[in-house]
Amino acid sequence: MSSSAVEYAHQNHPRFLHELKALLRIPSVSTLPEHKGDCHFAAEVLAAELSRIGMENVRIIETGGHPLVYADWLHAEGKPTALAYGHYDVQPPDPLEEWLSPPFEPEERDGNLYARGAVDDKGQMYMHIKALESLLATNGVLPVNVRVLLEGEEEVGGEGIAAYVASKPAELKADFALVSDTELFAPGLPTLCVGLRGMIYTELEVRGAKTDLHSGMYGGAAPNPFVAVAHILAGLKDEQGHILIPGFYDDVISPSPEELAAWRSLPFDEEHYRVTEVGARQLTGERGYSVLERTWARPTLDVHGIPGGFTGAGAKTVIPAKAVAKVSMRLVPDMTPTRAFALYKSYVEEIAPAGVDVEVRLIHSGEPCLIPVDNPYIRAATRALHEVWGKETVFIRSGGSIPIVGDFARHLGLPSVMMGFGLPDDNLHAPNEKFNLKNFELGIESVIRFLEECGN
Amino acid sequence: MSSSAVEYAHQNHPRFLHELKALLRIPSVSTLPEHKGDCHFAAEVLAAELSRIGMENVRIIETGGHPLVYADWLHAEGKPTALAYGHYDVQPPDPLEEWLSPPFEPEERDGNLYARGAVDDKGQMYMHIKALESLLATNGVLPVNVRVLLEGEEEVGGEGIAAYVASKPAELKADFALVSDTELFAPGLPTLCVGLRGMIYTELEVRGAKTDLHSGMYGGAAPNPFVAVAHILAGLKDEQGHILIPGFYDDVISPSPEELAAWRSLPFDEEHYRVTEVGARQLTGERGYSVLERTWARPTLDVHGIPGGFTGAGAKTVIPAKAVAKVSMRLVPDMTPTRAFALYKSYVEEIAPAGVDVEVRLIHSGEPCLIPVDNPYIRAATRALHEVWGKETVFIRSGGSIPIVGDFARHLGLPSVMMGFGLPDDNLHAPNEKFNLKNFELGIESVIRFLEECGN
Repeated sequence: MSSSAVEYAHQNHPRFLHELKALLRIPSVSTLPEHKGDCHFAAEVLAAELSRIGMENVRIIETGGHPLVYADWLHAEGKPTALAYGHYDVQPPDPLEEWLSPPFEPEERDGNLYARGAVDDKGQMYMHIKALESLLATNGVLPVNVRVLLEGEEEVGGEGIAAYVASKPAELKADFALVSDTELFAPGLPTLCVGLRGMIYTELEVRGAKTDLHSGMYGGAAPNPFVAVAHILAGLKDEQGHILIPGFYDDVISPSPEELAAWRSLPFDEEHYRVTEVGARQLTGERGYSVLERTWARPTLDVHGIPGGFTGAGAKTVIPAKAVAKVSMRLVPDMTPTRAFALYKSYVEEIAPAGVDVEVRLIHSGEPCLIPVDNPYIRAATRALHEVWGKETVFIRSGGSIPIVGDFARHLGLPSVMMGFGLPDDNLHAPNEKFNLKNFELGIESVIRFLEECGN
Repeated sequence: MSSSAVEYAHQNHPRFLHELKALLRIPSVSTLPEHKGDCHFAAEVLAAELSRIGMENVRIIETGGHPLVYADWLHAEGKPTALAYGHYDVQPPDPLEEWLSPPFEPEERDGNLYARGAVDDKGQMYMHIKALESLLATNGVLPVNVRVLLEGEEEVGGEGIAAYVASKPAELKADFALVSDTELFAPGLPTLCVGLRGMIYTELEVRGAKTDLHSGMYGGAAPNPFVAVAHILAGLKDEQGHILIPGFYDDVISPSPEELAAWRSLPFDEEHYRVTEVGARQLTGERGYSVLERTWARPTLDVHGIPGGFTGAGAKTVIPAKAVAKVSMRLVPDMTPTRAFALYKSYVEEIAPAGVDVEVRLIHSGEPCLIPVDNPYIRAATRALHEVWGKETVFIRSGGSIPIVGDFARHLGLPSVMMGFGLPDDNLHAPNEKFNLKNFELGIESVIRFLEECGN
């Protein structure tokens, strides 16, 4: 089946790429206060582009944090309504020195586009917009009704959009959500993601003396918050990756035997994954679980940094007054952030060494979720993907968290179609993030076909 | 006994203080490469001042790092020769936000002078220079021969001066060293320090994956260097402060019963120390040892910071590729830095969790030392201190490390007189470092009297 919209996308691809690069040059790092203006500017640019391609009712919705962008096109009478979601905010780019090209100066190399946000999620969000442009430009209409909702706080917990969705506004009435913030399981293998881990992101602050002290004068008498943090962190997870917080695993639901069997049939080579994706001497994690089970269906605990103290070059002989560990846990169904945080907090307080004060803060959280797959939108997606990629779709989960997917289900009753085109080695949240240029192009084509299939 | 030099010092005190402030405005932070020029400038200022007051053979001696400053006055025939040592380099000022006045803008408050380096060691070093000025200005001569040797790398291990001293240059020929880089045990209580801990300052680098990874995607499979560092650090020292490195305590010599008895008679209130000096909920450290034993006569291990990873505000869901812990150990007689580092390194390698690579680096080190007290210079010091302070001198040790004192003994055969006038709450190496203004004045007077006593 030919599609003039696909043809349009193909012909206009150089321009699409040029526009995406302009978007990637905006350093819309949501977690850093100094980039607040950049986040707002990204929202404005996207709103202008949605207007330009023919979407209607375009507007910027202010929140307590970075704004939402809304647009719709609702003239496909009798057809279903899609809610296309994406986020324009990005992770911080540090460590800067490890980027081969500057994070906010997009560069094409070896068939990839390198930039912070290339795949997560500006590039994938932009696929939606360019698919809509292609359909509107060639047909004058869309095959289904479409609402677009973009946020700027996905990387910092998405409070603004969560509150907005929870308020169940009439303008979010839809039949399904389309989310492109995931990846193909392997290059060329069409993939739908049907499960996400939730998370709690926390700060664990340990305070010892009232001020920094000389480690010669006071070493042996003053509590050292970094040593205390080490004892607490070592007490939270053993060296095999088993989390030691009492009750932490109580609500974990194992995947069904059928799902596990399907995972075993996926093209996954653990040694290749270890060497090329992770690049570590050895993989770690709970014994008795495969890598896919450990990253998709088991909770984990990670430490992201321990600010405080002396971090300069050379030596400073100080006992710092405080240390702050940034600690997150990924959650799986049926765990809840509320219960996980409560268990974690009380255990930290219990095991904190004598002499220090601890304070445990929740920075943000998201519910884990599983997506029902037996619905017409998932079926439409598999047909569309087969047309574009020539292969049967595989169903996977992701170890990451997209809390809005749970919110769409819980508050709006929407099933999500998580159709993403990243690759496992795209360096999400890391230096040298990239998006495969072919996947950007086929992604736009896949979204066009998907919306056409939904309209059939 | 009156002294016209003391009178001169008293009359000129406002100018001395003014000059010290100028010296404190130079941010001569030896560990930070960006302050290399400031260190050299401080050396030049001091050399010029030594010339101005009448010292001879003044020169700057370049080293591989920051330069030494040398000067002498050798016309007191038949009299002993003093080697007056001090350092013009200072610790980094961070955390800057905790300073009540900027670290390099000296401010007088409540009878104290606040600035980085006020007491450690610019203020105390400057006492020597102002004592020499007072003696030369009033008498035209010094009561003893004096060599001055100043360094700019005390806070980073003192490699330059160590190499210079080890070469046993003829110009360092002397009978004793005068070192003012210590403190009074209590306000108004004249104190000589007769023991110092040594140290090894190290970096412990842990590497996991080849690049930073998304903690959602890879959490549960990729090694987390911060978690590994926590396990290693928790394995080095237990929660009671006992170091777990096998063999670490083998060479520790206990103080004599007489020394321990003398320490017990010192005016020390542990609860007052806990509340006012340390300001922690509880003191920590090895059971069965008093605070003075723990800080003066027992080895300790401290963590100063764990750079790497995400340290910004908010959240970044990353598994960092590496973590670096800055770890130091204080050593007591008869431990040696060489053996302590070897034991530490091999133990870290042994306990490192699977999946990560560890590298242990020695940044700098210093030998512990005990000073013989039965010599004429110590006796002269106690007489001088009695004249100025009206009290018997107490003999204490310090938990800190002044490696040059060991070098003076080992290479030049010099006993050191460690006569310092800091106070326990002077915030050495911490925000709001200060020097008591009265102690600065009485310190100059004490040095004048001491040199006069040595010449009698």
